[in-house]
Amino acid sequence: MSTKPTLYTSLSPALLHLYDLSNSVVVIIDVFRATSTIASALYNGAKCVIPVDSVPKAIEISKNIGGIAAGERDGQIAEGLQHGNSPLEYGRDFIADKTLVLTTTNGTRLLHMALNNKADSIVAGSFPNLSAICEHLIADKKNVVLGCAGWKDRFNLEDTLFAGAVIGRIKEHFNIYCDSSLMAEKMYNSHKKDLYSFAPMLTHYHRLVERFGLIEDIRFCLTEDVANVLPYYQDGKLVKG
Amino acid sequence: MSTKPTLYTSLSPALLHLYDLSNSVVVIIDVFRATSTIASALYNGAKCVIPVDSVPKAIEISKNIGGIAAGERDGQIAEGLQHGNSPLEYGRDFIADKTLVLTTTNGTRLLHMALNNKADSIVAGSFPNLSAICEHLIADKKNVVLGCAGWKDRFNLEDTLFAGAVIGRIKEHFNIYCDSSLMAEKMYNSHKKDLYSFAPMLTHYHRLVERFGLIEDIRFCLTEDVANVLPYYQDGKLVKG
Repeated sequence: MSTKPTLYTSLSPALLHLYDLSNSVVVIIDVFRATSTIASALYNGAKCVIPVDSVPKAIEISKNIGGIAAGERDGQIAEGLQHGNSPLEYGRDFIADKTLVLTTTNGTRLLHMALNNKADSIVAGSFPNLSAICEHLIADKKNVVLGCAGWKDRFNLEDTLFAGAVIGRIKEHFNIYCDSSLMAEKMYNSHKKDLYSFAPMLTHYHRLVERFGLIEDIRFCLTEDVANVLPYYQDGKLVKG
Repeated sequence: MSTKPTLYTSLSPALLHLYDLSNSVVVIIDVFRATSTIASALYNGAKCVIPVDSVPKAIEISKNIGGIAAGERDGQIAEGLQHGNSPLEYGRDFIADKTLVLTTTNGTRLLHMALNNKADSIVAGSFPNLSAICEHLIADKKNVVLGCAGWKDRFNLEDTLFAGAVIGRIKEHFNIYCDSSLMAEKMYNSHKKDLYSFAPMLTHYHRLVERFGLIEDIRFCLTEDVANVLPYYQDGKLVKG
């Protein structure tokens, strides 16, 4: 028998409980946009990103520590906050040496679910930091669960495509016996050459672009390695790994 | 605005609650093998199929009505039963004019979940009755939820491929705003010419073929329209619609 670690893909937070997280690295994937934004902020010099599950908590913590409270609900800047969930908001001039306190509809919620399910360790993955994630997973030699944040527990394709991108790069290092992973890799291979032109078919594209005009966000979130850091969860914070 | 009905695909029983079933036709999909077996039995003249959720209930009901108690757990004939979940067991000589009382790990469980979630109506779909399902959904003009049974709440590809086959045939009659449906159709289109040769990559194939040698079952379950009836749920039974 091979002694390679296993790799599974969880297509929705509602399926996460099916996987044993206790001896796995869990990759939180929320391509549009939480994990892309986390990568962007850390890449641009943020001290850390504190993921929280509510707007009041984001406001309270950011006040206490002098951080930036930010987040969205249903794709828009959440009421009571001045900063949202766009990776483009967090350029170096604004975010360097600051702490971002972030709450989002899907991604930060999934991260807390992974914590509650006793994940061995947690990293945040997105196309902007694809290579850093893959290198970490290969070097770590632990079991992996790729956790797609989806949209309010529904499957979405952009998170699945990112899972597929990871699998394509690291699969020879893992035992993969998982239809979700097989599907994710096939979908990514079918569309990797035209992720931009495929994007308008996705439900989340409509939410972000047709309702809120966030086409530049979409471009950033689908570009590989433009914020190539490893966001690693430690003591309540995502820090550069 | 278009007045077409909507179509969604639920990739796992654990996601079914996300969809409004109360004004939808729910298509129960358990390609390997419950819904293929249901189609086979009805096509071969069974009076009806009674889906039940436990082995003792299957035995009790079949005794009371003089039916055939059948079912599997984890891919094998369930303890205490003489008949399993193979569509090839239910040829005309054996099943004509009889009642099949069937319990399975995933498919019949999903059917009961759809009932509990107040589905407007329920039909059972599989490649052997693909055309009958598509014709019914087009004629019915109601909202549709394609419900994949998966494996113990995990996503599986064979049910998703069948959902994709349905979507490819009927999509112009529906409003489809659903990444699961988009993915299912793309996966089916990529593999429709080689479903047999793709099958060995699926986890469920390993379970059925490598452990139990059921290659002929797999062939039947992937062949379109070889048992082209409409299994329609009514008063506790699946009958020919």
